[in-house]
Amino acid sequence: MVKVGIVGGTGYTGVELLRLLAQHAEVELVAITSRGDAGTAVSSMFPSLRGRVDLRFEDPAAANLKSCDLVFFATPNGVAMQQAPELLNAGVRVVDLAADFRITDVADWEKWYGMQHTSPEWVAEAVYGLPEVNRAAIRSARLVANPGCYPTAVQLGFMPLVESGLVDLEHLIADAKSGVSGAGRKAEVSSLFSEASDNFKAYGVPGHRHLPEIRQGLSRIAGRAIGLTFVPHLTPLIRGIHATLYAQIKGEGDFQSIFEKRYADEPFVDILPMNSHPDTRSVRAANICRIAVHRPQGGDTLVVLSVIDNLVKGAAGQAVQNMNIMFGLPETDGLWQLPVLP
Amino acid sequence: MVKVGIVGGTGYTGVELLRLLAQHAEVELVAITSRGDAGTAVSSMFPSLRGRVDLRFEDPAAANLKSCDLVFFATPNGVAMQQAPELLNAGVRVVDLAADFRITDVADWEKWYGMQHTSPEWVAEAVYGLPEVNRAAIRSARLVANPGCYPTAVQLGFMPLVESGLVDLEHLIADAKSGVSGAGRKAEVSSLFSEASDNFKAYGVPGHRHLPEIRQGLSRIAGRAIGLTFVPHLTPLIRGIHATLYAQIKGEGDFQSIFEKRYADEPFVDILPMNSHPDTRSVRAANICRIAVHRPQGGDTLVVLSVIDNLVKGAAGQAVQNMNIMFGLPETDGLWQLPVLP
Amino acid sequence: MVKVGIVGGTGYTGVELLRLLAQHAEVELVAITSRGDAGTAVSSMFPSLRGRVDLRFEDPAAANLKSCDLVFFATPNGVAMQQAPELLNAGVRVVDLAADFRITDVADWEKWYGMQHTSPEWVAEAVYGLPEVNRAAIRSARLVANPGCYPTAVQLGFMPLVESGLVDLEHLIADAKSGVSGAGRKAEVSSLFSEASDNFKAYGVPGHRHLPEIRQGLSRIAGRAIGLTFVPHLTPLIRGIHATLYAQIKGEGDFQSIFEKRYADEPFVDILPMNSHPDTRSVRAANICRIAVHRPQGGDTLVVLSVIDNLVKGAAGQAVQNMNIMFGLPETDGLWQLPVLP
Amino acid sequence: MVKVGIVGGTGYTGVELLRLLAQHAEVELVAITSRGDAGTAVSSMFPSLRGRVDLRFEDPAAANLKSCDLVFFATPNGVAMQQAPELLNAGVRVVDLAADFRITDVADWEKWYGMQHTSPEWVAEAVYGLPEVNRAAIRSARLVANPGCYPTAVQLGFMPLVESGLVDLEHLIADAKSGVSGAGRKAEVSSLFSEASDNFKAYGVPGHRHLPEIRQGLSRIAGRAIGLTFVPHLTPLIRGIHATLYAQIKGEGDFQSIFEKRYADEPFVDILPMNSHPDTRSVRAANICRIAVHRPQGGDTLVVLSVIDNLVKGAAGQAVQNMNIMFGLPETDGLWQLPVLP
Repeated sequence: MVKVGIVGGTGYTGVELLRLLAQHAEVELVAITSRGDAGTAVSSMFPSLRGRVDLRFEDPAAANLKSCDLVFFATPNGVAMQQAPELLNAGVRVVDLAADFRITDVADWEKWYGMQHTSPEWVAEAVYGLPEVNRAAIRSARLVANPGCYPTAVQLGFMPLVESGLVDLEHLIADAKSGVSGAGRKAEVSSLFSEASDNFKAYGVPGHRHLPEIRQGLSRIAGRAIGLTFVPHLTPLIRGIHATLYAQIKGEGDFQSIFEKRYADEPFVDILPMNSHPDTRSVRAANICRIAVHRPQGGDTLVVLSVIDNLVKGAAGQAVQNMNIMFGLPETDGLWQLPVLP
Repeated sequence: MVKVGIVGGTGYTGVELLRLLAQHAEVELVAITSRGDAGTAVSSMFPSLRGRVDLRFEDPAAANLKSCDLVFFATPNGVAMQQAPELLNAGVRVVDLAADFRITDVADWEKWYGMQHTSPEWVAEAVYGLPEVNRAAIRSARLVANPGCYPTAVQLGFMPLVESGLVDLEHLIADAKSGVSGAGRKAEVSSLFSEASDNFKAYGVPGHRHLPEIRQGLSRIAGRAIGLTFVPHLTPLIRGIHATLYAQIKGEGDFQSIFEKRYADEPFVDILPMNSHPDTRSVRAANICRIAVHRPQGGDTLVVLSVIDNLVKGAAGQAVQNMNIMFGLPETDGLWQLPVLP
Repeated sequence: MVKVGIVGGTGYTGVELLRLLAQHAEVELVAITSRGDAGTAVSSMFPSLRGRVDLRFEDPAAANLKSCDLVFFATPNGVAMQQAPELLNAGVRVVDLAADFRITDVADWEKWYGMQHTSPEWVAEAVYGLPEVNRAAIRSARLVANPGCYPTAVQLGFMPLVESGLVDLEHLIADAKSGVSGAGRKAEVSSLFSEASDNFKAYGVPGHRHLPEIRQGLSRIAGRAIGLTFVPHLTPLIRGIHATLYAQIKGEGDFQSIFEKRYADEPFVDILPMNSHPDTRSVRAANICRIAVHRPQGGDTLVVLSVIDNLVKGAAGQAVQNMNIMFGLPETDGLWQLPVLP
Repeated sequence: MVKVGIVGGTGYTGVELLRLLAQHAEVELVAITSRGDAGTAVSSMFPSLRGRVDLRFEDPAAANLKSCDLVFFATPNGVAMQQAPELLNAGVRVVDLAADFRITDVADWEKWYGMQHTSPEWVAEAVYGLPEVNRAAIRSARLVANPGCYPTAVQLGFMPLVESGLVDLEHLIADAKSGVSGAGRKAEVSSLFSEASDNFKAYGVPGHRHLPEIRQGLSRIAGRAIGLTFVPHLTPLIRGIHATLYAQIKGEGDFQSIFEKRYADEPFVDILPMNSHPDTRSVRAANICRIAVHRPQGGDTLVVLSVIDNLVKGAAGQAVQNMNIMFGLPETDGLWQLPVLP
């Protein structure tokens, strides 16, 4: 049994971690913290967990996190960089679901996140937790930086093309659409039902924080700097990301086959038959990325469609997948629930 | 292992049965039939099942249903009454998720359903599959009539009051709201997104087919005819039923306690603390009914709130619960998934 | 031309007032105030008004509200009671869209609204602005208390029955469902898309502030205290209220005809044919209440269905209707837009 | 007064035409036809029109369409090409809201639409009804081919760039998202609430019928063949199209200014300030296209965001705009309603 703690469990990532971990046979949930809601029963905030999760939120200072084998940080950006080092130094392994350790270039991180980094030494040690790229390093990692939701969908969709060397790496385009839960459980006018429902819009076109993360990931794979235009949109779903990816073909290849081979052994990436259209509900509440490849009218532009549930493969599910890898468990343990459709 | 077949698996009840049964450790899925889609891979119609359900839809005539221990009918009303008897006579046990065997009074059934009943002898033998009422009879039943979605939510909410003898049985009111999946996966204008989204309406106020089913169930419990006004509404959810129940108090009692005692041993009925407001998402995709009891301003009207997922506790989940009972399995087997929230 | 000011224009009621008034031929929009957003162009907050409303939000202190003929208060409860008297004393007429002047019994108001009333003398003078009841008094009113959204739908639906003397006045039941815009443009977790979408729940069952308002209105009509159970629900719509009303028949009558006669001359109340089911979208964005009358199975319980757009006939539209009456304009001026369907 | 008839009024385009025309001061609505619903009162199918539209649907054979000045065809593709010529020859002017006369190359049309064209001679005479391109020709046209919804949003968004000669015309990308009403009021499983709600997907990536229409329009403007990748998506809105357009810069220019100048005199195209993010609700139920221009990080890729209501500027509103031009009315007559927000 892996003894697990969660720091900051009152957001959507936190409650999704709870849902998955409470159904994971090899996990003992030890503690969950919340500064603002200490003392509150978890199941009174999230009645879906009644009778199944008996913990109360604890004050971070009081919680016995050091007795855990693993602590997940499901906190806003900037918290883990301050609180994780003490746990790490005590031998606790950490998965941070926020962005604190994702960007290797600390100066770049500080520019995009608008704060000073307090533990750059741990940035250097952290492993970027995309198992389809870094499985071996994750296995022995002390600190895993769990990828962002957009970066997961976009990198998995572009990766085989970037590796193939057959597309123009200067002008990749990622047109991505996210459900509203991606904005978190924060009281903001722009996330109100009456604002986000029956409405569609782009946001952050001049620059979104997931741009440098995607660029870093794809550039590493390419072995050179890539050029990317990334446009995120808000769409009236609770859960789901749909990335529509465009790349210009520079050399011929069997692109469908390239994708199928790349992910042949991956339990959580599913390549659909050529010309399919995956919908977000086909991955709802499940830890899976489904991808379809198109070459419209046989032209020189490839279109790749990549869908995930932003709270599962895009956050909590991928974190559990990383935990499974870190602790030598079967990678699919606790992650085998079928998507909920309709 | 229970060998299971499904007749009519292309609707929402069918795909939900598949989701639950594919995750049930004691079930072997043998066959699934569809006249119109014979030959189609199940996972090509429902990509959420890719890699997990390898069956193809078979023509009912060709499928080897008689080798099954249990066959679920997830068909439109009027099919099971024609096809189930042959299986029953061959020793296969049957759970009908449609309405064919729910109403004991065949003449009444024929009036409400607008067709002649072709196997009234099986109506007499069928057991009404509401485990919280009929568990013992279900255990040995050859044919179980799985309750309707509204009837499940309304009966579970009214039952303790009716049993208590403390409320006026002449003027029960059930104001119920259903998600659109309750209308099934049928191509009808009234169920289109552009009709049902951002819209709310009552329907069937002059008379809905679930009225006689609820009336029969509550009358049996009361030991006398009860009077019920039942108003269903369509609300822009995919899944979920919320029943708001009104009863006039005729004798004093500790109503909260009456509910808690009645359901103390029920794994799938959860009584919330007094004055709670259960939301439908707290049961989304899970086999559970949550109930709250109110007595506003201490007056003489009780208000009971009862929520279920219409496709789970209101259909496929309850059918699996009945299967577990029929085959001596732990009642929660395969039904222990946590609700998906948000 | 009526010179009009709006105090507190950044909420949904405010922007809906702007939409209606900007299309009203007899209105000159003079000023709109917002303490927090003074200086901001109205059309930058609400791009739907670009090119059509050129005002900026002004600080309340700076705005020349005393030059107006009429000022609408679209403010939170408790603001108008403090700021309206100065305007009233300067001869400006006022329509308050909040609750400050709706409840005649000041002690009762203070109990439900949890604050002390600062201008009880104006409560006494205020006219309750439900034109279908108080048209004559509204005409000459200096101060109109615009009704709440639920109270509009429920009172219009019950009124003919209460007047008729043919139903039990002790046990009226109003089961009402509201779209989320009724909660206002406030950043609250419970109104987030990810909380309110694909979800349905009751709220405020122990007691909602609109209960005393409805009770006061119906009691006045009845000439005696009435008994009412009022259960509001939140449903995933932006706009719309659907009230399902239950009354026990005590004396026979032609109920359909009673409704038709009562509202024969009302431009904004539409009685549907017997046994109809009005949907909320049939009144979306329009100043109209549609009502249908049912007597299920010819029993002794009447069911009345009443729908409005909570932001129009339930708020801003009714306020403009009151303005038209107060200034001798045709009552339908500026309120003749057709509902938006689908 | 323009005497107007509508052929095929039971779809969403038809009811939207009715909403707009019923509020148009210079229009007399003479007849509306429907083969399947002849005899039905329009307001019984669309209760939003109760008391405002008193027509009944008539059989096309019986309706006196030849007495009209203008007939709108709101029919499925392939109807107008058969029925319009008789009216045209009788001197009636026609606006076809379907695709019959949009594509000049009849062979190409037949390939994409899968039927033989029955009146190619009228294709040659028809004027493509995008006022921002063809205003002069529309004025005297006998037959106007009203543009498709995607083509309107995409062409208006790309047009200034194509005219400017400053972008790569070989690799234009249009990633477009549509509300579900774009699929029409047809009973199809894929448009059901339970399929389309809380879900997002691309469709028609291998080839969508609006591709040749957009390509024709932009090629005419460019004076040469352009290369376009067009990917449409279905998003859970009722109304709205959001086109996200990508173009590579080949020559420098002040792109914001280019857009502002191009549309300076257009009443129904609104260029937002640089770096804005128009949302679809800012045009909901109104005849307007809002556009924003971005150049992320000052790179070599331009991003243009273009939003319309698919039923208004994308269909019925543009048809009325064309009617106004054809009959010498002020272009904004009957089209001046403000968007409905929230």
